[in-house]
Amino acid sequence: MSTAEARLRTGREVIAERFDEVRSTTERLAEALSAEDQMVQSMPDASPTKWHLAHTTWFFETFILLPNCSSYKAFDPHFTYLFNSYYKQLDGHPQRSLRGTFSRPSLEKIMQYRHCVEDAMRDFMASEQASDILELVELGLNHEQQHQELIVTDIKHAFWSNPLRPAYQPSAKTAATSSTTFKWIEIKGGLETIGHGGSGFAFDNEQPAHGVYLEPFRLGSRLVTNAEYLEFMNDLGYERPELWLSDGWDYICANRWRAPLYWELVDREWSVFTCRGMNRIAPDQPVCHISYYEADAYARWAGARLATEAEWEVAAAHAIRRGELLEGGALHPLPADSQVDGLQQMIGDTWEWTSSAYSAYPGYRAAAGVLGEYNGKFMSNQMVLRGGSCATPASHIRASYRNFFPPHARWQFMGIRLAKDARD
Amino acid sequence: MSTAEARLRTGREVIAERFDEVRSTTERLAEALSAEDQMVQSMPDASPTKWHLAHTTWFFETFILLPNCSSYKAFDPHFTYLFNSYYKQLDGHPQRSLRGTFSRPSLEKIMQYRHCVEDAMRDFMASEQASDILELVELGLNHEQQHQELIVTDIKHAFWSNPLRPAYQPSAKTAATSSTTFKWIEIKGGLETIGHGGSGFAFDNEQPAHGVYLEPFRLGSRLVTNAEYLEFMNDLGYERPELWLSDGWDYICANRWRAPLYWELVDREWSVFTCRGMNRIAPDQPVCHISYYEADAYARWAGARLATEAEWEVAAAHAIRRGELLEGGALHPLPADSQVDGLQQMIGDTWEWTSSAYSAYPGYRAAAGVLGEYNGKFMSNQMVLRGGSCATPASHIRASYRNFFPPHARWQFMGIRLAKDARD
Amino acid sequence: MSTAEARLRTGREVIAERFDEVRSTTERLAEALSAEDQMVQSMPDASPTKWHLAHTTWFFETFILLPNCSSYKAFDPHFTYLFNSYYKQLDGHPQRSLRGTFSRPSLEKIMQYRHCVEDAMRDFMASEQASDILELVELGLNHEQQHQELIVTDIKHAFWSNPLRPAYQPSAKTAATSSTTFKWIEIKGGLETIGHGGSGFAFDNEQPAHGVYLEPFRLGSRLVTNAEYLEFMNDLGYERPELWLSDGWDYICANRWRAPLYWELVDREWSVFTCRGMNRIAPDQPVCHISYYEADAYARWAGARLATEAEWEVAAAHAIRRGELLEGGALHPLPADSQVDGLQQMIGDTWEWTSSAYSAYPGYRAAAGVLGEYNGKFMSNQMVLRGGSCATPASHIRASYRNFFPPHARWQFMGIRLAKDARD
Amino acid sequence: MSTAEARLRTGREVIAERFDEVRSTTERLAEALSAEDQMVQSMPDASPTKWHLAHTTWFFETFILLPNCSSYKAFDPHFTYLFNSYYKQLDGHPQRSLRGTFSRPSLEKIMQYRHCVEDAMRDFMASEQASDILELVELGLNHEQQHQELIVTDIKHAFWSNPLRPAYQPSAKTAATSSTTFKWIEIKGGLETIGHGGSGFAFDNEQPAHGVYLEPFRLGSRLVTNAEYLEFMNDLGYERPELWLSDGWDYICANRWRAPLYWELVDREWSVFTCRGMNRIAPDQPVCHISYYEADAYARWAGARLATEAEWEVAAAHAIRRGELLEGGALHPLPADSQVDGLQQMIGDTWEWTSSAYSAYPGYRAAAGVLGEYNGKFMSNQMVLRGGSCATPASHIRASYRNFFPPHARWQFMGIRLAKDARD
Repeated sequence: MSTAEARLRTGREVIAERFDEVRSTTERLAEALSAEDQMVQSMPDASPTKWHLAHTTWFFETFILLPNCSSYKAFDPHFTYLFNSYYKQLDGHPQRSLRGTFSRPSLEKIMQYRHCVEDAMRDFMASEQASDILELVELGLNHEQQHQELIVTDIKHAFWSNPLRPAYQPSAKTAATSSTTFKWIEIKGGLETIGHGGSGFAFDNEQPAHGVYLEPFRLGSRLVTNAEYLEFMNDLGYERPELWLSDGWDYICANRWRAPLYWELVDREWSVFTCRGMNRIAPDQPVCHISYYEADAYARWAGARLATEAEWEVAAAHAIRRGELLEGGALHPLPADSQVDGLQQMIGDTWEWTSSAYSAYPGYRAAAGVLGEYNGKFMSNQMVLRGGSCATPASHIRASYRNFFPPHARWQFMGIRLAKDARD
Repeated sequence: MSTAEARLRTGREVIAERFDEVRSTTERLAEALSAEDQMVQSMPDASPTKWHLAHTTWFFETFILLPNCSSYKAFDPHFTYLFNSYYKQLDGHPQRSLRGTFSRPSLEKIMQYRHCVEDAMRDFMASEQASDILELVELGLNHEQQHQELIVTDIKHAFWSNPLRPAYQPSAKTAATSSTTFKWIEIKGGLETIGHGGSGFAFDNEQPAHGVYLEPFRLGSRLVTNAEYLEFMNDLGYERPELWLSDGWDYICANRWRAPLYWELVDREWSVFTCRGMNRIAPDQPVCHISYYEADAYARWAGARLATEAEWEVAAAHAIRRGELLEGGALHPLPADSQVDGLQQMIGDTWEWTSSAYSAYPGYRAAAGVLGEYNGKFMSNQMVLRGGSCATPASHIRASYRNFFPPHARWQFMGIRLAKDARD
Repeated sequence: MSTAEARLRTGREVIAERFDEVRSTTERLAEALSAEDQMVQSMPDASPTKWHLAHTTWFFETFILLPNCSSYKAFDPHFTYLFNSYYKQLDGHPQRSLRGTFSRPSLEKIMQYRHCVEDAMRDFMASEQASDILELVELGLNHEQQHQELIVTDIKHAFWSNPLRPAYQPSAKTAATSSTTFKWIEIKGGLETIGHGGSGFAFDNEQPAHGVYLEPFRLGSRLVTNAEYLEFMNDLGYERPELWLSDGWDYICANRWRAPLYWELVDREWSVFTCRGMNRIAPDQPVCHISYYEADAYARWAGARLATEAEWEVAAAHAIRRGELLEGGALHPLPADSQVDGLQQMIGDTWEWTSSAYSAYPGYRAAAGVLGEYNGKFMSNQMVLRGGSCATPASHIRASYRNFFPPHARWQFMGIRLAKDARD
Repeated sequence: MSTAEARLRTGREVIAERFDEVRSTTERLAEALSAEDQMVQSMPDASPTKWHLAHTTWFFETFILLPNCSSYKAFDPHFTYLFNSYYKQLDGHPQRSLRGTFSRPSLEKIMQYRHCVEDAMRDFMASEQASDILELVELGLNHEQQHQELIVTDIKHAFWSNPLRPAYQPSAKTAATSSTTFKWIEIKGGLETIGHGGSGFAFDNEQPAHGVYLEPFRLGSRLVTNAEYLEFMNDLGYERPELWLSDGWDYICANRWRAPLYWELVDREWSVFTCRGMNRIAPDQPVCHISYYEADAYARWAGARLATEAEWEVAAAHAIRRGELLEGGALHPLPADSQVDGLQQMIGDTWEWTSSAYSAYPGYRAAAGVLGEYNGKFMSNQMVLRGGSCATPASHIRASYRNFFPPHARWQFMGIRLAKDARD
């Protein structure tokens, strides 16, 4: 057996193991949910859990099995259309807002679909042709991990839309925390490199690695907390137009926003709906479920600004400790650690809005063919978020990872890290 | 035992029997549907089946048990709010479009709710105080029968919204039919009485009986058929503004309507989605799922008009044979009977749009208190429909019955009967 | 000269005189307005003054001169399209909301158009063929009178939309008034006749005269006043859903209505914008600029109801004195006369919302051809108003006159007269 | 007289001269328009000419005269509110869509306002205190020049909205042109500086000058022409989703775009509405009035991309010849010059969409106070355009100038220059 063969076999084995692990994690996230719970689509941006279960399976079937594995027969030819999310170069897809009407196929059928495709994938990964598709499997697994995060955020929104406010997971005691001092961490800038240039997996939009020139800047040592955000609210932050982008001001007026998503006044005290039910606001927890407009207004109020994505990525090299991720199980951002010096919470806890609009890196090439639609066609009207959240799987996040959402979106775990020019 | 007591006991027994019959019919309508099917709300006007199951139960609990039966404890205090449809004088109700998010309570819980309320109702109906609430029980049962019809029409819309187009009931052979000649039936008019004045149950909006003066007129002997409606379509009926009401023209242009709801071109032939799946258009079946705008335009094209509700009701006295109703089981309007003379299909098959806007009869009194909201507050922007449909329970429909919908609505089984002045 | 000829000559002369009078009244209404004022279209339902000047001229050109007068050449072929309001059977018309972009043709050109068409009309009316078109001229003049009213109501809205709130006419002293007692006037009902059956002009929708059967009823002796309406407002009338139609409640919530149109709190006192500028609310003036929803809610609050149009018309036979009309010059409804007994203000002051939806009378025939679109195609989603207003020309209004607007409209001078069943 | 005083006097004289020149240019642009023409607001994004005349005057009154010149009394206190465009820190402003209702003040009054403010400004500029406000005057003049461009683009849209399609300026012969070869011009990149660092006027958003690192790239030698864009259209460019950004595809579907704004099929040939009326498409003219979505889709179709704003600005240093600007008088982009080598049309002809979202430069400081709203609050959902157009005054444009519009906007003169990575 040649070294190359050995390496390939190892590659196969590694990915097959990872395949099992990712697929079972997805199912574990759906375990607490009844077939009825998995039907709910509480807004067009969100999808029912069972749709996520099917769509992540469709991805492997559509992009790997059907084009590459001649022995594989489509589990159900209708599914090809039914569970296509947005790939226009395929034969079409149902309107997004219809996903909540998919009572058929049943959840049971969708679980059969999952297992049938999984069996076929395992066979195929064990076969001779496997070497050609390992990269695609890796893409499929990263795709599924993105949907793991969406399962959490979408069911949270679904349960919040139900007047009974059921909890996704049992309530848990939250450890008492002591406040962490906020510090400015200085980074000297200059000609730096960002973007993914290494050997591991990365999406096309993280590539290629390329030079950027940065002025010296400073980042907040930790995320902005609920207590800090409440100061902004109490200082009439939501009523002072001079703090807001023009679009942001129009948006909060039209939608009468006065607090982050999921915040509610209960007996004149702010409470927040979490994956574990309604809780009093914990002052030291990072504020989350805020839009770009709110993050930007907060930063202006605080005499600071948001970081660019290049600044964020360069700084992330200095940060070692990770914050709360999906595996931690809290499903809510946790307070910074008062024992730790330097940059905290760069990875995990909440996605961090950057001041960078989502656009192509110099030299960017969308993947060829249908998969080119994966990331490239969303490069307008979206802002980049960095760092992952308490709903992001640990093996899915990295410093070069670029998430993106429109500036009004806030149902993801989105928070704020302040930045400043060095000379300010 | 006095005669009055005997009569009361009989009244109680009759209504208790009817209670069982109506309640079990509702459950039978939901039998073919999974818990997932019962979650779907495919448009804000429609509701999930399971919501109908709960809301009809809520009606008995809210208007009978809680105010009258001191020993009854609310099954779940949240349900009082959760399953209120639109009664503003109660403590509020969830936004209509949220009904599809009610994965909790589960269907199982809702069935427990049904049975718990049913047990309490049966006990209460057997008690001394029953005499005071028999009328309310009758109202509750008629209310539930309205929702039986909605269960059918809403699940039909839900399944049509699912790209797989599942069928609500197994497909059935449709008997070959021979065309029925259309005749004009003349009614001589004069001073007549309409409205409910008798002893049986009727809604407040059917009362009081009152005089109306009618010019002599003619009604079509049967409903307009698919074949006839296709002639209108082929004569470019949807493209000639002079045939349409101004609002109707704007509406069909904005929504690009070119055929009745549920009609689709399959291989250049018109097919229709039914409760039993997709079928070729049957020429002799009554056309249905059309809006008032379409009914009105068709009538104008045909050189006729629609009847007023007074004309319809006076004519209905002349009609004896009933058409297809819920109990018939076809769940689709059936062709007129070629063996029969005179007015056909007045009761059953499809609701018939009248040219009368829904408004109060002279001397109308809304019921006192909260139940006054039942019918009275909808008296604007709605047109009256008469006669019931293939989804209406037989014991629920009568000549004086007034149904009403906005002129653009068409997801109920709505069809056309032509009318004319006698001298035309 | 035969009698018939003499009668015709007289007919010609009468109508020619009336032609001059109506046409010059229209111009007088525009006199106070600059070319710029005449450009404003402050909402799609309203039109610029100069458009009204042109469209009323277009009517004579399109329906009389071009089809009947062979020597007449179109003033400008573009105008045929440009000033068509809504006649779909002609070659099309510009989108209604574009009327405010018609800076060209200039006002000067439009005045030339008016005078050119007037000259041609006068010649034609003096000619032999005149006898064929006298009825059409009468229709054209009534049409123009409708637009006279719209000139007033549309410029009022236009000036109110301008932050400077300019006045259409100079301010005038309003005479002090003493409160008029409100009485219920009883009308005995029975089989009555409504609709136009006589010889003078009437629109197609007022015909034919026909029998109606009425229960005995009562009408308020005068219109509801501002003082009375304020009581409703102070009794939280706008915040109690049980007083409102369901559509009405949704509408006032969505639009945050809390008072009639043009009412504004100035220094905590209610003022109202009139054709003569902002004034304090006069308690004895009739309330106006309210929607059907508000009229209906007020009547319910007052323990009364609105009249049907048949009741109104039958009662109008009992009323002799007319209220304020266009010729009076107040351009605002005036208080009832405290010296007068019986029904007042039936004609003039404000249009009175009836509880009747606008629909065809039995035996109704729309005019043949294009002019059939004049009235007939609006018979859905509109309520009938009766009696004319302070902006209606005296020669234009009669007891059988049917005006109609959607239930949310309120920029016309619309008010409330209460009605009741006789036995209440 | 000291040198400093001499320099100041010169500064004063220069700016006073420029003041006269800019103010009179604005009036010249309005000369061809009647008072009625100057009333039209054909969409909320556009404003009536007369509003531009007033608002540019308001700017000098509000930011210079009122706060600095104690002897100056407001021309009309209402104007302070009336002609505020969007400055929230002032006392409020009318809703943008109402500008078309401002028949009062009359155009005559607005001209008086202009001249009154001009006289006061001239006196003030000649006074001792002038030195403090020269920078603000310069800002006010640049502001007015921006509105000169808007006067042209807004009246073009207004006249196109009028069904008569009047022309803003008399038609002119367009010289026959010979096609200009397209070439790729290579720029080597590296560490470069962009942004305004010099002494002349620049907006806050062009500052500070700062380093950027660029990979080598290539720019098209000239703008994309109508002929080239037609190839894209004929190749079904508007029907192939794979060419479009996701938002762009949704936008063109919802709005049924099939060609640039102002293009129309006349007798099966494409014509275009210009400031001088309808013309056949000239193949060699630059395509214009296209959105970012269309520019981006065209570039993708052409196997190229758009330039970033940094690339554009660095390249602009290599370009010397200017294209058509406001002073040229064509009011339409002109073909490239076939005699010229190298980059053409960088300045003038059409604004060029870049792939850069509009955001703050590193070290950006918004101006203090109210004027900080001028540029800074628009930094979301907008793309940067560079280079000015045929409606931009020559003294207003420079290489560092950043214009910005939402990606769907196209009523400005917006066009396409292609870019590519050097290695492609």
